[in-house]
Amino acid sequence: MKLPAYIKDFEVWKSEFSYYYPVTVRFSETDAFGHLNNTVPFVYFEHARIQFFKECGLMGYWMDKGGETIPVTADLHCDYIKQVFFDEPLHIGIKVSEIGRSSVEIHYAIKNKAGEICITGRGRIVQVSKETGKSVSWDEHSVESLKKGAPVCLR
Amino acid sequence: MKLPAYIKDFEVWKSEFSYYYPVTVRFSETDAFGHLNNTVPFVYFEHARIQFFKECGLMGYWMDKGGETIPVTADLHCDYIKQVFFDEPLHIGIKVSEIGRSSVEIHYAIKNKAGEICITGRGRIVQVSKETGKSVSWDEHSVESLKKGAPVCLR
Amino acid sequence: MKLPAYIKDFEVWKSEFSYYYPVTVRFSETDAFGHLNNTVPFVYFEHARIQFFKECGLMGYWMDKGGETIPVTADLHCDYIKQVFFDEPLHIGIKVSEIGRSSVEIHYAIKNKAGEICITGRGRIVQVSKETGKSVSWDEHSVESLKKGAPVCLR
Amino acid sequence: MKLPAYIKDFEVWKSEFSYYYPVTVRFSETDAFGHLNNTVPFVYFEHARIQFFKECGLMGYWMDKGGETIPVTADLHCDYIKQVFFDEPLHIGIKVSEIGRSSVEIHYAIKNKAGEICITGRGRIVQVSKETGKSVSWDEHSVESLKKGAPVCLR
Repeated sequence: MKLPAYIKDFEVWKSEFSYYYPVTVRFSETDAFGHLNNTVPFVYFEHARIQFFKECGLMGYWMDKGGETIPVTADLHCDYIKQVFFDEPLHIGIKVSEIGRSSVEIHYAIKNKAGEICITGRGRIVQVSKETGKSVSWDEHSVESLKKGAPVCLR
Repeated sequence: MKLPAYIKDFEVWKSEFSYYYPVTVRFSETDAFGHLNNTVPFVYFEHARIQFFKECGLMGYWMDKGGETIPVTADLHCDYIKQVFFDEPLHIGIKVSEIGRSSVEIHYAIKNKAGEICITGRGRIVQVSKETGKSVSWDEHSVESLKKGAPVCLR
Repeated sequence: MKLPAYIKDFEVWKSEFSYYYPVTVRFSETDAFGHLNNTVPFVYFEHARIQFFKECGLMGYWMDKGGETIPVTADLHCDYIKQVFFDEPLHIGIKVSEIGRSSVEIHYAIKNKAGEICITGRGRIVQVSKETGKSVSWDEHSVESLKKGAPVCLR
Repeated sequence: MKLPAYIKDFEVWKSEFSYYYPVTVRFSETDAFGHLNNTVPFVYFEHARIQFFKECGLMGYWMDKGGETIPVTADLHCDYIKQVFFDEPLHIGIKVSEIGRSSVEIHYAIKNKAGEICITGRGRIVQVSKETGKSVSWDEHSVESLKKGAPVCLR
């Protein structure tokens, strides 16, 4: 398997995930080829990412109506390694790969029941001002939350 | 074919649609049974209904940030008559069936290329206050717009 | 609250649900009005219904490639009672309301964290032949499975 | 603007698109932040890509039940440049960037009404055997179809 550019050493990379969010493939998420439609992993990425941010204590801050900033997706990549089918129980792994001035690089690893990685991904989230749309530097609390990562998923 | 309760005479009912919005079935809208997933017609209903409201001159009013009311879906019904497949060009028919004090009853008819009705539906939309969530009576302009319906779709 | 036609006595009706499937509202399932988009409950209905059929022992039979019949949605109704927002933990209640010759009437009740019913629904599923598309009578095993319903959700 | 790695010269890159598929942003495709949810461009990519393959004469071949191969998505990237809102009429540009032995690199450019590029993307599609799941070299006809690209969209 040829590795995507964002994975240097697959074994090391895999070992760095400690947060996983569980998802079961819905029938409406399959397509006429009989497997998970290629657009759906991004839905899983977002859902798991938000749960991760929530456990980090960041989501409340962003969703808070008084909050002046929102997280915006700057880019997203997805590599499809192994086909996924209806009703498979998946675990969506999330980790913080790099924290920038106002952005954060998130990596994704989707594992099946057998523990095999079926899908990998990455993407950059930027904190922007709701009013101006311009990027806003993380404050210390946000950086600490991101550094700490999230505890092992409790669900 | 046994008619749904909201259709008295099928031929008369069909003949009352003059607005149709065109849609082509996306691959991501099919499922592993190889046909249009049963959750998708509601997506088509909403999209066509909004285009219809837009052409009636109502949508601009509701989406307008100064507007104090929004249209809320009170209920939705869908009857699946004929299977629909990937890439079928469909026409989503919309008509105003009944105008209430603060609500409107909308009927839906989805036709395939051959002009056959594959899916029918109905639903009630209620105008509510953004602030209180309570229903708000239509003003005269709204009633006139709904009565007039929309011109034949120009797309 | 005016009851939908398929609910005679709300308290009795509510008390008859024993199977609930848990779902958390995804961000991608909200819309620009800030709440759960009206098309999404049908996705929840299907997902929970299939989990229910699986626990009844029916899904394996239908998904089995050797199987000659598939369950097809004949109609679906949804009544929106209370707004639902991002990240709400919901429980999708499923019950068998009536078993026909080749069809089954399913009822749905979506509860929020406070135990309030936010959304109700119903729909008829018909067993059809993959080859002819015509309805196929339930065999005894299917009727028994449907009658028995599913055990209380184990998730 | 920092360019994604797959775009060398933005002006040249933009000028190479001649096929565009039109899409209007559906309300159900927005989210509670009020704009197009980040998972939706991939739905547009797939839909436009398939329409493009269809006009190239490749889609019929793949969907044909007698066909032994199917196109599988190997990876997908998306860069979000400019926010997109409800009801915006978009044009999804598709071009063949590189033809491999059994794969094809596709580029995407989503333009708004003002002709501004809001979203760019790329992804690799691989032709695989339905039976073995292994990659299958393009035949001459497929290469010619891909080389030729599609005529300017007629819709």
